[in-house]
Amino acid sequence: MPDTITVSPDLATWMKSIQEKIEIALNNFLPETKQIPERLHDAMRYATMDGGKRVRPLLVYAAGQLFDANKDELARAACALEMIHAYSLVHDDMPCMDDDALRRGKPTVHKKYDEASALLVGDALQSHAFFILSQGKNPPERQLTMLQILAHAAGSQGMCGGQAIDLASVGLNLNRAELEQMHQLKTGALLQAAVLLGALCGKTLSEEDNTALHRYSRAIGLAFQVVDDILDATADSATLGKTAGKDAAANKPTYVTILGLESSRLLAEQLRQEAHNALLPLTASVHRSERLNQLADFIVQRKA
Amino acid sequence: MPDTITVSPDLATWMKSIQEKIEIALNNFLPETKQIPERLHDAMRYATMDGGKRVRPLLVYAAGQLFDANKDELARAACALEMIHAYSLVHDDMPCMDDDALRRGKPTVHKKYDEASALLVGDALQSHAFFILSQGKNPPERQLTMLQILAHAAGSQGMCGGQAIDLASVGLNLNRAELEQMHQLKTGALLQAAVLLGALCGKTLSEEDNTALHRYSRAIGLAFQVVDDILDATADSATLGKTAGKDAAANKPTYVTILGLESSRLLAEQLRQEAHNALLPLTASVHRSERLNQLADFIVQRKA
Repeated sequence: MPDTITVSPDLATWMKSIQEKIEIALNNFLPETKQIPERLHDAMRYATMDGGKRVRPLLVYAAGQLFDANKDELARAACALEMIHAYSLVHDDMPCMDDDALRRGKPTVHKKYDEASALLVGDALQSHAFFILSQGKNPPERQLTMLQILAHAAGSQGMCGGQAIDLASVGLNLNRAELEQMHQLKTGALLQAAVLLGALCGKTLSEEDNTALHRYSRAIGLAFQVVDDILDATADSATLGKTAGKDAAANKPTYVTILGLESSRLLAEQLRQEAHNALLPLTASVHRSERLNQLADFIVQRKA
Repeated sequence: MPDTITVSPDLATWMKSIQEKIEIALNNFLPETKQIPERLHDAMRYATMDGGKRVRPLLVYAAGQLFDANKDELARAACALEMIHAYSLVHDDMPCMDDDALRRGKPTVHKKYDEASALLVGDALQSHAFFILSQGKNPPERQLTMLQILAHAAGSQGMCGGQAIDLASVGLNLNRAELEQMHQLKTGALLQAAVLLGALCGKTLSEEDNTALHRYSRAIGLAFQVVDDILDATADSATLGKTAGKDAAANKPTYVTILGLESSRLLAEQLRQEAHNALLPLTASVHRSERLNQLADFIVQRKA
């Protein structure tokens, strides 16, 4: 990840340090493989460790910087989010969904283990995310708010709902508003939860905080998807670490098919600027939005 | 359910009143079908409403009686548990697991809708269980404990873990201790969570409370499974509302195959008495364990 030319050395170093922290934290928070049932715990680790850019954890830490959040609580929230994200990938890859054999350059869980295990790995990772978050040491009221935000973002009016709309949209001509709604639920909800959870590890949020963070999250959530669609249409599988061009092959609507490649790139750039602007009301008082701004840049400029 | 001859008229009336309350509460707590995505919300309701004996909710209310718990919080906890239970049934019935076409006398979710929908319905029901429980109005510390108990009971060291052991045990000769461990996780963990959550809606539990309730839960959890195995071996599909004899057909170990039918019946009776005994230390002070005792009787004496 941090090897793309557009990432500043400072950001690259910071990202690497968070990615390393997350690997250690996941290792601590996941049940040990030697615990019964061993194969399930082994597969849960296979699905979660060593993987991906850790965009959600990065957002948690970047948002935590805004309000000088407790580092242990950031690690916990980041791991809970990453477990939800990992479970969704395991289930998405299953034959009854996207039927994908490759994920992050490795065999998907149902290929490496079996379908029933993949189903249970996803289910157990979801439970475990809520388990570890319920043990957080933020003030209890705030911890409950964090659980509520995560559960809502994961559920039928968040990620699962977006998946359902995505499935139903294959072969349909979605307009831009419908496509945006689908992605806002499917990917945006969890990215937004990452930003809010990170901030909540620092303090109870004011209305002004909430407005700014929602606006930022919406912008980077959409930008993330627009760029995903651009990369799916332009990069190769080896660079992506997953099957490229599969949305087009599956006849799924994308920003590239609806807007075209150049307009999609313009939109991503607009959203990047909108993300920066959203944080201005906060930076006047705290001057700590540097990482969130850099992540908005990274999300738009990444090459994989 | 309350039509079995062994249920006293008083218990039957009480059970019916709780079952009706739960139907109303589930209707309130589940997202409305008219909300987007409609089909997913429709399927979530199909999977959860109008179904089953509601054993977990009954245990919640019965345990709530011990400490005079708040009724609204009992309804919330009961619905959260029932959503977890319902999601597990939806996923269990899928082709990669038990591949079952019939559940509670109706087509299973993947038969009525499709496999991808069944996967998402289960995932979204799990999220929603944690969502509604995170909004509970018990003191926040206690509410967090409840979330922690539910998440642990649902996860890899609870229900999902039991499922994984169950899958791995097909065709193996489990001994009685291994069979007990499997069921303690697969079914017992969630029944225990029901008892604890109900009690926690009343007060913070003392060590004595915890010991008594764990002992009671362990006994009824095992009794529940022993009786399930007896019924699977002796009842017909119409009475059960699901496919009878499927464990034997799938070459799965059961109490009946390990102990024989008569010893299994004796064991169930012993466990029923153990459940009653477990509560004695509590009844000395509160005299409110009537419903928990009656439910232990019901679990052992039920015919379906």
